[in-house]
Amino acid sequence: MSMGKRLAAEFLGTFWLVLGGCGSAVLAAKFGGDGNPLGIGFLGVALAFGLTVLTGAYAFGHVSGAHFNPAVSVGLWAGGRFPARDLLPYIVAQVLGGLLAGAILLQIASGAPGFAIDGSQAGAFASNGYGALSPGGYSVAAAFLCEVVLTAVFLVVIMGATHGKAPAGFAPIAIGLALTLIHLISIPVTNTSVNPARSTAVAVFAGSGALGQLWLFWLAPLLGGMIGGIAYKWIGAEPR
Amino acid sequence: MSMGKRLAAEFLGTFWLVLGGCGSAVLAAKFGGDGNPLGIGFLGVALAFGLTVLTGAYAFGHVSGAHFNPAVSVGLWAGGRFPARDLLPYIVAQVLGGLLAGAILLQIASGAPGFAIDGSQAGAFASNGYGALSPGGYSVAAAFLCEVVLTAVFLVVIMGATHGKAPAGFAPIAIGLALTLIHLISIPVTNTSVNPARSTAVAVFAGSGALGQLWLFWLAPLLGGMIGGIAYKWIGAEPR
Amino acid sequence: MSMGKRLAAEFLGTFWLVLGGCGSAVLAAKFGGDGNPLGIGFLGVALAFGLTVLTGAYAFGHVSGAHFNPAVSVGLWAGGRFPARDLLPYIVAQVLGGLLAGAILLQIASGAPGFAIDGSQAGAFASNGYGALSPGGYSVAAAFLCEVVLTAVFLVVIMGATHGKAPAGFAPIAIGLALTLIHLISIPVTNTSVNPARSTAVAVFAGSGALGQLWLFWLAPLLGGMIGGIAYKWIGAEPR
Amino acid sequence: MSMGKRLAAEFLGTFWLVLGGCGSAVLAAKFGGDGNPLGIGFLGVALAFGLTVLTGAYAFGHVSGAHFNPAVSVGLWAGGRFPARDLLPYIVAQVLGGLLAGAILLQIASGAPGFAIDGSQAGAFASNGYGALSPGGYSVAAAFLCEVVLTAVFLVVIMGATHGKAPAGFAPIAIGLALTLIHLISIPVTNTSVNPARSTAVAVFAGSGALGQLWLFWLAPLLGGMIGGIAYKWIGAEPR
Repeated sequence: MSMGKRLAAEFLGTFWLVLGGCGSAVLAAKFGGDGNPLGIGFLGVALAFGLTVLTGAYAFGHVSGAHFNPAVSVGLWAGGRFPARDLLPYIVAQVLGGLLAGAILLQIASGAPGFAIDGSQAGAFASNGYGALSPGGYSVAAAFLCEVVLTAVFLVVIMGATHGKAPAGFAPIAIGLALTLIHLISIPVTNTSVNPARSTAVAVFAGSGALGQLWLFWLAPLLGGMIGGIAYKWIGAEPR
Repeated sequence: MSMGKRLAAEFLGTFWLVLGGCGSAVLAAKFGGDGNPLGIGFLGVALAFGLTVLTGAYAFGHVSGAHFNPAVSVGLWAGGRFPARDLLPYIVAQVLGGLLAGAILLQIASGAPGFAIDGSQAGAFASNGYGALSPGGYSVAAAFLCEVVLTAVFLVVIMGATHGKAPAGFAPIAIGLALTLIHLISIPVTNTSVNPARSTAVAVFAGSGALGQLWLFWLAPLLGGMIGGIAYKWIGAEPR
Repeated sequence: MSMGKRLAAEFLGTFWLVLGGCGSAVLAAKFGGDGNPLGIGFLGVALAFGLTVLTGAYAFGHVSGAHFNPAVSVGLWAGGRFPARDLLPYIVAQVLGGLLAGAILLQIASGAPGFAIDGSQAGAFASNGYGALSPGGYSVAAAFLCEVVLTAVFLVVIMGATHGKAPAGFAPIAIGLALTLIHLISIPVTNTSVNPARSTAVAVFAGSGALGQLWLFWLAPLLGGMIGGIAYKWIGAEPR
Repeated sequence: MSMGKRLAAEFLGTFWLVLGGCGSAVLAAKFGGDGNPLGIGFLGVALAFGLTVLTGAYAFGHVSGAHFNPAVSVGLWAGGRFPARDLLPYIVAQVLGGLLAGAILLQIASGAPGFAIDGSQAGAFASNGYGALSPGGYSVAAAFLCEVVLTAVFLVVIMGATHGKAPAGFAPIAIGLALTLIHLISIPVTNTSVNPARSTAVAVFAGSGALGQLWLFWLAPLLGGMIGGIAYKWIGAEPR
């Protein structure tokens, strides 16, 4: 595939990840207000994030590899599966696709009566955060540890499920549902990032609080991604 | 396959989509009344819609291609995957199958004490709507944008997952769960259509309000489907 | 496979269907009492029933065909896929496996303080019912129609997903999740049977009310299964 | 694969099982307090446990066989699928991986204001228990029966789905979702173990109550695993 088409796939796939994951969180998680079980809750948001990747990977996996996430691109590079020269264009396409989704989501959400983003609230416009901006009030240390560990395991699953000896064709299911699982664990901690493009895409609309904490959601996922990529590189290596 | 069998498959598949998706919404979403978590909520309805397509596509994919949706047929035509001459019969079969499901669902639902359709309520008999008939009160502009964008991505996923280079056999999972994801995002906005046959199938029983808004749930999904079909046609095209 | 092993598989598979589906309903659906969202609700029960078949079909599909349900055996016979001479032994094994699960479930459930079965309540011990014993108070006519239609579509999905032209290996996913979908629609109507063995397995422990209504949960699923089997036989037939 | 890499895979996979399953239970199940439907509830925890195995099995199945559970290793040995000499190293790796996850989970959870483990509460730090430490107050006999039966069926599913005649590549889906199903049934009874490594991994942090009941969560799963392994060995055996 040409690089243009690969970047279009990464752009659209990350657009879908942010529109679907953050969109379900903003529009549907708390439908009807506190205590109303009609809303999809954290379970529905976790499912939505995972399904963006599952569906996007079946649609675009054969075009771009379906990263949709700078931490995945960097982790695959660390694991020896992705060339360094493609990192920057992939990451730029991912961030831009995410930003477009954030803008469209804002446009849709603004169509509801009384919609407003209160950037002082944890999880405002599906933003990630720690401390006062963590849904459960988790400390910066807990947030950092959580994002590093979960992104590391995410990369291990990605590397393993796309390994030549893994069953062919199932990787999008394993990887998408791994992202669902990651959200089931950690929405209360950081509102779950493991993806700097996703964090950036909504932070720019969520106000100064989210922007001021954005560093963690680049640093921790990228670090975790590299740890996971390197770890699996050893485990999955064939003896020769 | 003969056209008769293909149309029977489209008829039955759309019947299943409306019976399962709208049926779960009407019968089970709010079981026990407001605030009762026994009901399946928007999450359960989202899952139900997706599973109608997942299961219907495994049952009928090899017969008719398993569109079950005029926006899918039109989008695949725009994307170069479906002949124009088959559009009208497919769409007629889809609408008729949906209508039969709406009638049977009404018959079942009427068997409960106190059942009545109040067409002035958003989502009455699982109908789609905007403004006063949007579950969350979303404006017509937000509803239109939402339906166009989500149908466009739906077609991108359908075109991508059925591409010759995508893993064989997994398309029904990707496509069905994409419809689940679309519902996780947008039930609050329009009660989620992305399918004119599904909207029509219940609007005719939901009263003049839903019928008066039906134009949007033909126009926006068909437009979005064409956009998605054309977009993927470019991305997925092989260099020759 | 020998008939002994096939019957053992049907026995164990139906055991699993009843233990998992009815077990989740009895033990976990309303955990913590009315209004407590910790319990798994109808959505969780729907998922549980489907997963019994999904997992059982991967475990036993290559042994017995994984029917686990007299309506499936009869429907496949009507559809030309199962020999008449095997019907009776299969159905006996299914009913016995279900009954053992009901007995073990009763043993486990009795270990909780204050456990009792009130057969006058709809859904007591996960029993199926109509009228006063329907969870939502649905009439016998609505219950009958619902069970016939859903079992018919169930058989259509089973016949289609196991058709020689359907993707190989995916049938347990399609069939299991079809059963989930059927429950998402119809737990409020009849507590969902579509399976006479499942209904029988708990009715014998749920008291005279459930036993007195058991006829419907043999008649309607068997009728629906035959309709579905015959319908697909025509649709899926290859032109020769 | 070398034994070192196989043990690393078992270590990491069991780490993931405990971090994901117990992590979602500790951090997300009851988010927002009693009655708040934002939390993922037992349904979310059931899904999380299953997805740890589904994702871990796609990542590590080709390395170690993806047991992640002493009862699985012992059951596969009883079923003739795993050599006795590998039992002890596998079990040690599983327990150690689980313990590391418990420690990291404690570190993350401690980052929330007011976090404390009250070992006198059922399910404290996701521990397993019976009697006063069973979520639903189930007796030791009910708990024992439940763990034996569910682990036995778990092994039957594992043996069946990995049988040479089962569809290739689908086993992680069947096995992971079987674990989800097991949790949907039995979280109220014992908080669900069927895995001594998972029970041990959190019992050591949950206080003397959980530790004092840990014997059951070794004995019952190992016994059930052996029963299931032996049972399937007979059913799945080919006539020669």
